[in-house]
Amino acid sequence: MKTIKSLHEKKNTAILLIHCPDKQGILATVTEFLNKNYGNIIYLDQYVNREEEIFYMRVEWELHKFAIPSEKIGEYFDTLIGRPLEMNWKLYFTDYIPRMALFVSKMPHCLFDILARYTAGEWDVEIPVIISNHEKLRPVAERFGIDFFHFNITTENKNEIEKQELELLKNNKIDFVVLARYMQILSDGFIEQYPNKIINIHHSFLPAFAGAKPYHAAHERGVKIIGATSHYVTSTLDAGPIIEQDVTRCSHHDTVQKLTRKGRDLEKIVLSQAVYKHLQRKVLVYKNRTVVFN
Amino acid sequence: MKTIKSLHEKKNTAILLIHCPDKQGILATVTEFLNKNYGNIIYLDQYVNREEEIFYMRVEWELHKFAIPSEKIGEYFDTLIGRPLEMNWKLYFTDYIPRMALFVSKMPHCLFDILARYTAGEWDVEIPVIISNHEKLRPVAERFGIDFFHFNITTENKNEIEKQELELLKNNKIDFVVLARYMQILSDGFIEQYPNKIINIHHSFLPAFAGAKPYHAAHERGVKIIGATSHYVTSTLDAGPIIEQDVTRCSHHDTVQKLTRKGRDLEKIVLSQAVYKHLQRKVLVYKNRTVVFN
Amino acid sequence: MKTIKSLHEKKNTAILLIHCPDKQGILATVTEFLNKNYGNIIYLDQYVNREEEIFYMRVEWELHKFAIPSEKIGEYFDTLIGRPLEMNWKLYFTDYIPRMALFVSKMPHCLFDILARYTAGEWDVEIPVIISNHEKLRPVAERFGIDFFHFNITTENKNEIEKQELELLKNNKIDFVVLARYMQILSDGFIEQYPNKIINIHHSFLPAFAGAKPYHAAHERGVKIIGATSHYVTSTLDAGPIIEQDVTRCSHHDTVQKLTRKGRDLEKIVLSQAVYKHLQRKVLVYKNRTVVFN
Amino acid sequence: MKTIKSLHEKKNTAILLIHCPDKQGILATVTEFLNKNYGNIIYLDQYVNREEEIFYMRVEWELHKFAIPSEKIGEYFDTLIGRPLEMNWKLYFTDYIPRMALFVSKMPHCLFDILARYTAGEWDVEIPVIISNHEKLRPVAERFGIDFFHFNITTENKNEIEKQELELLKNNKIDFVVLARYMQILSDGFIEQYPNKIINIHHSFLPAFAGAKPYHAAHERGVKIIGATSHYVTSTLDAGPIIEQDVTRCSHHDTVQKLTRKGRDLEKIVLSQAVYKHLQRKVLVYKNRTVVFN
Repeated sequence: MKTIKSLHEKKNTAILLIHCPDKQGILATVTEFLNKNYGNIIYLDQYVNREEEIFYMRVEWELHKFAIPSEKIGEYFDTLIGRPLEMNWKLYFTDYIPRMALFVSKMPHCLFDILARYTAGEWDVEIPVIISNHEKLRPVAERFGIDFFHFNITTENKNEIEKQELELLKNNKIDFVVLARYMQILSDGFIEQYPNKIINIHHSFLPAFAGAKPYHAAHERGVKIIGATSHYVTSTLDAGPIIEQDVTRCSHHDTVQKLTRKGRDLEKIVLSQAVYKHLQRKVLVYKNRTVVFN
Repeated sequence: MKTIKSLHEKKNTAILLIHCPDKQGILATVTEFLNKNYGNIIYLDQYVNREEEIFYMRVEWELHKFAIPSEKIGEYFDTLIGRPLEMNWKLYFTDYIPRMALFVSKMPHCLFDILARYTAGEWDVEIPVIISNHEKLRPVAERFGIDFFHFNITTENKNEIEKQELELLKNNKIDFVVLARYMQILSDGFIEQYPNKIINIHHSFLPAFAGAKPYHAAHERGVKIIGATSHYVTSTLDAGPIIEQDVTRCSHHDTVQKLTRKGRDLEKIVLSQAVYKHLQRKVLVYKNRTVVFN
Repeated sequence: MKTIKSLHEKKNTAILLIHCPDKQGILATVTEFLNKNYGNIIYLDQYVNREEEIFYMRVEWELHKFAIPSEKIGEYFDTLIGRPLEMNWKLYFTDYIPRMALFVSKMPHCLFDILARYTAGEWDVEIPVIISNHEKLRPVAERFGIDFFHFNITTENKNEIEKQELELLKNNKIDFVVLARYMQILSDGFIEQYPNKIINIHHSFLPAFAGAKPYHAAHERGVKIIGATSHYVTSTLDAGPIIEQDVTRCSHHDTVQKLTRKGRDLEKIVLSQAVYKHLQRKVLVYKNRTVVFN
Repeated sequence: MKTIKSLHEKKNTAILLIHCPDKQGILATVTEFLNKNYGNIIYLDQYVNREEEIFYMRVEWELHKFAIPSEKIGEYFDTLIGRPLEMNWKLYFTDYIPRMALFVSKMPHCLFDILARYTAGEWDVEIPVIISNHEKLRPVAERFGIDFFHFNITTENKNEIEKQELELLKNNKIDFVVLARYMQILSDGFIEQYPNKIINIHHSFLPAFAGAKPYHAAHERGVKIIGATSHYVTSTLDAGPIIEQDVTRCSHHDTVQKLTRKGRDLEKIVLSQAVYKHLQRKVLVYKNRTVVFN
């Protein structure tokens, strides 16, 4: 069904995401390096955490006149700037289309929202595979023309199944994973394969109501606002770095069923916004927190 | 693709939407009428506009023990209560599934959002037909298994085409129309056939930026918040009764393109919330304003 | 400084707040009782919790033609309606101006906000006394012409001091207490004297970050939204029935100091909105949750 | 009443606000200039409008080791960088406390909010004078110990009075003016004396409901959200560059009086946030729009 073409014009740019100990002149050093080599900067944002003295930066520049060949940029940058300044850096090229796997269970709203954006060309991404622990959403995957794999996970076979899933991800050259209301906890071994590359949506305003049944808990507590939180998955349940959150008002009129309905709209938008930020390479993780550039 | 069953249990209830000049005892009269005839009230909300002295009410009750047969309720209510109290009232039965037509042009986000909810069983509605002035979204309609009709509208043939469209709506027993980013202005003649039954989404916080290119106008004006507005269509452009609005923050970082992207998420959620309220019979129109019950 | 007159016209009305097991006809019974006795209803809102089958209602009516003398209304209502229907009800008269005590520590923003509204006549309330465990805000109290009492509370003298404070409240005929960023925990014995009559503001989106230093905790967790919560004080810290909450966006740019600054604006508005709802008799508590009428 | 000391530690820094045609290397040039002269940068944010090719920047650096004496910084910067790069720049020193005049009419909520922050030390500002076209708020000014001047403006004497007001501002060395719900339109001649230095609060979500009685207009239109807008005053009414906006939900329950009450809380917070941004030198105006740094 990928019939609607991308809303974006193809870009031929590179992106650097950097964090390092703050010092005078880092920004000047990086921008000078790009300018001198004819790299026209089209995005630059930087942020200094002055309490921890950490410098964060995202810079994007055009490659068509850039003096250093793409395959050498990493090496040159590391030698001339990265290592001397003790940088932790990542380099991305926007002509590469990232490959994403979707994990779902029974609820279709996040899946539909993602597939709609995918089909409409809102995102530059490939979705070669959808994985589920239930059969229920297979028809949705099929109508959008995406391979659907059902794994019947039990406590006993979990290790074995995760091994098969990882194999499937590897074979499909998956760059990152999105848990679109996937109701299974991934093992630490699985998570380690995709550090800060598994995006989850939790249906509460974390850290309130972590774990199961957050709408029941919110209703029980009588809160006046409910929320949703998208975060990278770490080994501690619902405690990874938060990428995006949003909230909506509720009242005594809202039963658990109504909260669940209101929450669905929050969940799908918050998850999709987090995925979009991730795709744009605008999220940097440091010490279980994120820097999310504009 | 209607493979996922409804999230709602079937209800066998009736709904009354009422407005009338305010007087002492209206509420008591209505609830007594239902109680005496064994109608168990499961929803009641009422509101008095004390400036204009108008009473508004929505009441829903169970029919299975109700003493008056369904086909007689209207007559009895009108004779015993409606006429004596000068009420403007409407009666709905929840076992009837309303029939909705979608009008679209080229942008798919609202269409996808509505079809996803439809397929997921979020709404009790039938969507027999999608009408467009472009071919572009036919593949979307086809994948969801809904009939798609393309009308090539020009200034010259507009009257004739609208006649054909109205015929199509009539043949499909359409109850109400949703303009899901339909980029054509309907004639007064068309609108008169569906008074307060055509729901539009306008991509601004009305009454700011009515008319064409609201994101350009918002960018030009340098606003710090953008919005979307869903309203019933009347003969005055973008001036009908507002059902739902929402907003999101923006800044100098937001180009027209970025505003457009942010706005898409607003538009689809606001439109779908308005449609849901309409489907629940929770919207009452009076003097170009709405009362939207909880 | 009470030089600016009230923004409200004086009302001569009575308010009933009711909750009871739901049954057919409660609403009709109450409204009929008022109508028959020439009580013109100017506000009525009711809500049925259909899971727990509890009926909630707030009704306000004019007294000037009401057939039952004010001092007899409670008795008549209880005999004729309240006891037969097993109601839990409270009766208020709007010509009585409630008396509120303020407890503060060192932070002035909530205190200023409340005193500004008081002086501007936004609220119909009397504030005869401000109590603090510090001297710091005495000048603020003095400029607004309100008695300020400083109690030097220690772990050792807490019981004794609370006794003196309760005495002071009693002597001033205090109806309810507002903790405007009061940084002391009240004893259970104190709280029992004012059940659902002590309003606190907590500087987080409860139940996230209960207890001390919520902005530090929010910063540490890397949340993208912070909040404030106003609730009635119960014997469990920060766990009482929530009256009002609000939130604002934050980002990696926000240090603890900036979160604290942003939070101040939230705290003062949320607390004042909760106090206003309380003053209007629009808050009903049931099972550690609130029903807050419109 | 300025008895509560500032919440800020004194800073000895300089701030540059810059905009100019975008070119490669501007950022590097400015940061290199500061670094080479031992100016430790503690804040830097920059933004490029790629449609209009304009570069915007705010940079703040410590002066205590800076090689160029404060009184020479402007000259050196202009000669070496500003003129060659065609910059429009402004230089501020944070050890200078800006002087602000308040204009008010009859409504006290914005005035109270500003004076509370002033007294609490939230802002580094001096408020030597409050000017009004009514006597009503004199007691508020007096209690906060600020000089209050009443000018009885009529259509006839407007020119003369404005001359006196400007004289008063000049004598008090006023840097900028805040219209805290001042219900008079300033003449173009007055505005020209303080270009982008007069901050107004308008009680609607501009550009919706410009002009008089916006809450009446919002109620009449039946909007579901109301707003407030703070902007610099220009010669076109309510059309100057927007600094800050915020909104809150409303419904059919909200009479004009209730909208007015809800709006007061919006107005005071939005105005104070705009003033705070202005005081921090974080607002840059270009072509009737603002860039507001983080």
